Amino acid sequence: MNFKGSHILSVNQFDREAIEHVFNVAHQMLPYAKRQKRTNVLDGAILGNLFFEPSTRTRVSFGTAFNLLGGEVRETTGLSNSALAKGESLYDTARVLSGYSDIIAMRHPDAGSVAEFAEGSRIPVINGGDGANEHPTQALLDLYTIQKELQAHGNNIDGMHIAMIGDLKHGRTVHSLSKLLCLFKNVRFTLISPNELAMPSSIIDTIQNSGHKFTITEQLEGSLDADICYQTRIQEERFPSQEEANQYRGKFRLNQQIYTKHFQSKTVIMHPLPRDSRAEANELDNDLNLNPNLAIFRQTDNGVLVRMALFALTLGVDTIVSQFDQKVHWHVNS
Amino acid sequence: MNFKGSHILSVNQFDREAIEHVFNVAHQMLPYAKRQKRTNVLDGAILGNLFFEPSTRTRVSFGTAFNLLGGEVRETTGLSNSALAKGESLYDTARVLSGYSDIIAMRHPDAGSVAEFAEGSRIPVINGGDGANEHPTQALLDLYTIQKELQAHGNNIDGMHIAMIGDLKHGRTVHSLSKLLCLFKNVRFTLISPNELAMPSSIIDTIQNSGHKFTITEQLEGSLDADICYQTRIQEERFPSQEEANQYRGKFRLNQQIYTKHFQSKTVIMHPLPRDSRAEANELDNDLNLNPNLAIFRQTDNGVLVRMALFALTLGVDTIVSQFDQKVHWHVNS
Amino acid sequence: MNFKGSHILSVNQFDREAIEHVFNVAHQMLPYAKRQKRTNVLDGAILGNLFFEPSTRTRVSFGTAFNLLGGEVRETTGLSNSALAKGESLYDTARVLSGYSDIIAMRHPDAGSVAEFAEGSRIPVINGGDGANEHPTQALLDLYTIQKELQAHGNNIDGMHIAMIGDLKHGRTVHSLSKLLCLFKNVRFTLISPNELAMPSSIIDTIQNSGHKFTITEQLEGSLDADICYQTRIQEERFPSQEEANQYRGKFRLNQQIYTKHFQSKTVIMHPLPRDSRAEANELDNDLNLNPNLAIFRQTDNGVLVRMALFALTLGVDTIVSQFDQKVHWHVNS
Repeated sequence: MNFKGSHILSVNQFDREAIEHVFNVAHQMLPYAKRQKRTNVLDGAILGNLFFEPSTRTRVSFGTAFNLLGGEVRETTGLSNSALAKGESLYDTARVLSGYSDIIAMRHPDAGSVAEFAEGSRIPVINGGDGANEHPTQALLDLYTIQKELQAHGNNIDGMHIAMIGDLKHGRTVHSLSKLLCLFKNVRFTLISPNELAMPSSIIDTIQNSGHKFTITEQLEGSLDADICYQTRIQEERFPSQEEANQYRGKFRLNQQIYTKHFQSKTVIMHPLPRDSRAEANELDNDLNLNPNLAIFRQTDNGVLVRMALFALTLGVDTIVSQFDQKVHWHVNS
Repeated sequence: MNFKGSHILSVNQFDREAIEHVFNVAHQMLPYAKRQKRTNVLDGAILGNLFFEPSTRTRVSFGTAFNLLGGEVRETTGLSNSALAKGESLYDTARVLSGYSDIIAMRHPDAGSVAEFAEGSRIPVINGGDGANEHPTQALLDLYTIQKELQAHGNNIDGMHIAMIGDLKHGRTVHSLSKLLCLFKNVRFTLISPNELAMPSSIIDTIQNSGHKFTITEQLEGSLDADICYQTRIQEERFPSQEEANQYRGKFRLNQQIYTKHFQSKTVIMHPLPRDSRAEANELDNDLNLNPNLAIFRQTDNGVLVRMALFALTLGVDTIVSQFDQKVHWHVNS
Repeated sequence: MNFKGSHILSVNQFDREAIEHVFNVAHQMLPYAKRQKRTNVLDGAILGNLFFEPSTRTRVSFGTAFNLLGGEVRETTGLSNSALAKGESLYDTARVLSGYSDIIAMRHPDAGSVAEFAEGSRIPVINGGDGANEHPTQALLDLYTIQKELQAHGNNIDGMHIAMIGDLKHGRTVHSLSKLLCLFKNVRFTLISPNELAMPSSIIDTIQNSGHKFTITEQLEGSLDADICYQTRIQEERFPSQEEANQYRGKFRLNQQIYTKHFQSKTVIMHPLPRDSRAEANELDNDLNLNPNLAIFRQTDNGVLVRMALFALTLGVDTIVSQFDQKVHWHVNS
């Protein structure tokens, strides 16, 4: 896969080699994100950070990643005031806005919209989420986190065992992550959800056709030797009614007691965030915050590294970043 | 006209010499916008990009223009949360906000508001549109585009023939553009609109008093030897009802077939954008996208150059920009 | 008080020595804000400017202060689209967002929210206002202004006389400012408000316990030898109804005539802004704009200096700022 000048629209673009390339570059970004040094390789470059659907954390993560490489960010949030609302086509919007920056990160509520936009764009477009369709940088940061966490235990993705829990039907992240995992060897999937919220058969087919083992179950039962427990949230907005969403509340609850009962002491806990921490949510309890295997905040930190890597690769500066190293002059908390 | 430290509020400020000065500077900005090189002449300068009325493309265009000169952008979007909504005067807002940047670009829904704001401002203010009143940078980018397009055909603005089509009553852009064209010699205007949406008599008077020729007609008829066809959109928001707006829909439709019938093969097609591309819009059809004379996206690209020129001129750096040239280290799509 | 790596959450953190330290650093920022020179000491640093409650002037002031030190700004405005609205805890939000910048300035509508957020943050957090609770940078800029204005008359804070007028019950700024003034010596307070809107007894106790003199009165009467007249606005949003707020309208009006009648020719007029300039507001009349003692716009200018100082101190660059001095190449209005 040639990244330079390319759009990043879907996890389907990636083969194993491409993923490992991204992850190698992401790893080289760590000293910059940790503020051991900084770089101005993209000094003067402009990111168009177009969030036609608002999302604070993903938007800021993209912007920060670009700033960490030395670039500037021009931003737009929301759809209601945009020309798109006045009937402008995605093609026109892309033709115009791609004249205002060097690269674009874009989120939009409609499935397929980012790819349609990319056709009109004269510069690389990175998909920051297009409705129920794709969110490739989330899948990549999830997989990067899995690799890092497993490496810390002396393991790697080949041969790993992942338990996915919760709403596996609507969860865009578990679909994309499963596709990426299928590019590796001998992965075991334990898919835990009620029948109504089961993993779609297309994903199951992909898992099966790539020769991986999987178990489908409705309950979290017995003792699982999973390396990763990937918990999802109830996507309330995808259910016909709040009542229907509520009936699944708490069925996939994870707290320290449930973790101890069903998982190993080394099992890493992941979640796409945000987690609902209201008392009635029963999703991923705060008592897990003290558990060193709770990797949810390492996930978001890793998101910055992965996005830096994608910017560096698509703008063709991945091999020269360190030629522009600078010192950090301010105090950094250790 | 002395630009240094001045406000840019209205096309009425400009004489022919001033326009040509702006256009010469704008032309020098092209290598920066095309990323053949970059400049940091405004490194450390701050633009206050105050869009009290949202407008994605104009806002981002101003911000990008400032970034391309090396400066930073602080931004505000919308009116509802601002102090203006709590009864603060434009004078107070200007006194306060002009302490936060080196120059201001401002859009506001009320006619006259930007000029009123400028009276309280301690730094230059560039009008980014004040309701139905003025949008001088749009007029300048339109005229700059006309000059560039005509030069490509070996012609120039003196002696040109422009057809303006559509809602000439409410279209702020055609009013301002007409005023600027009147500063040149022997321009011919063909003004095509239904009587109800005709060009205001004040603009007609200006055209007549400056000795230019014009034709007023209700229909696009026969063969026009126009150099420029400037198509406008129905400003739905200015009509008493949607029904009233709808009765004019399609009356000024331009597609490849109509273009071929009424215009020359060299006639340049312009439009202030956004264009409505919904099936029922019948405004400027997508089949024109393949027509090399469709200049609408060159217009928005030129907008960045013109805004860069105005920033450079008002901040007095127009003659030293290239002293701060830097290399572009990232991949640029050709 | 050790500023490096610390949160700035409340005026209660400050003793007299700390305040004087902040003010000394703020004073050194003046040449940068006046554009006599610039600095890039924070080149590459990122401010997370998180305004979960919108506030144009405070938000832009923080962003500008960071830009003036050479840093970049990532921003968020409003609460409705944030993860907080989906039930994410302030702790989670802080853990995530503190991975995206080097320092955070935050405003939030709920009292105590910024301190709660700070507990989860891995980087310094500066309180930009948490509902009715605290807005420490406003109190510091008010006090800095008082010091500067008094020094211009050959006086200082010790021994000064301040008249506070208006809604002293709901005015967060007068509470915080009073606390800070109590750290100095022999301050005289004249507190003018109707009984229903009187200064809370907790603040009165603080004034009394620190040995300062105060007078409480319902009317602006006679001649006051106040050095400072601090006028407040009716906080309409804190009253049960608009009617209740309206009954106090005009009771604390200040215009040139009232000023001349009750104050000395040297009395400095301050106000936390925005002031309501609508005809019916009767708050702080525009005829005072010509009065050289009207310091309200010097207050907002000083806000930039104080925020620059707090950024420099918490990031530990206060002593090296001038090592990174650069020339200003653009025209600056004198």
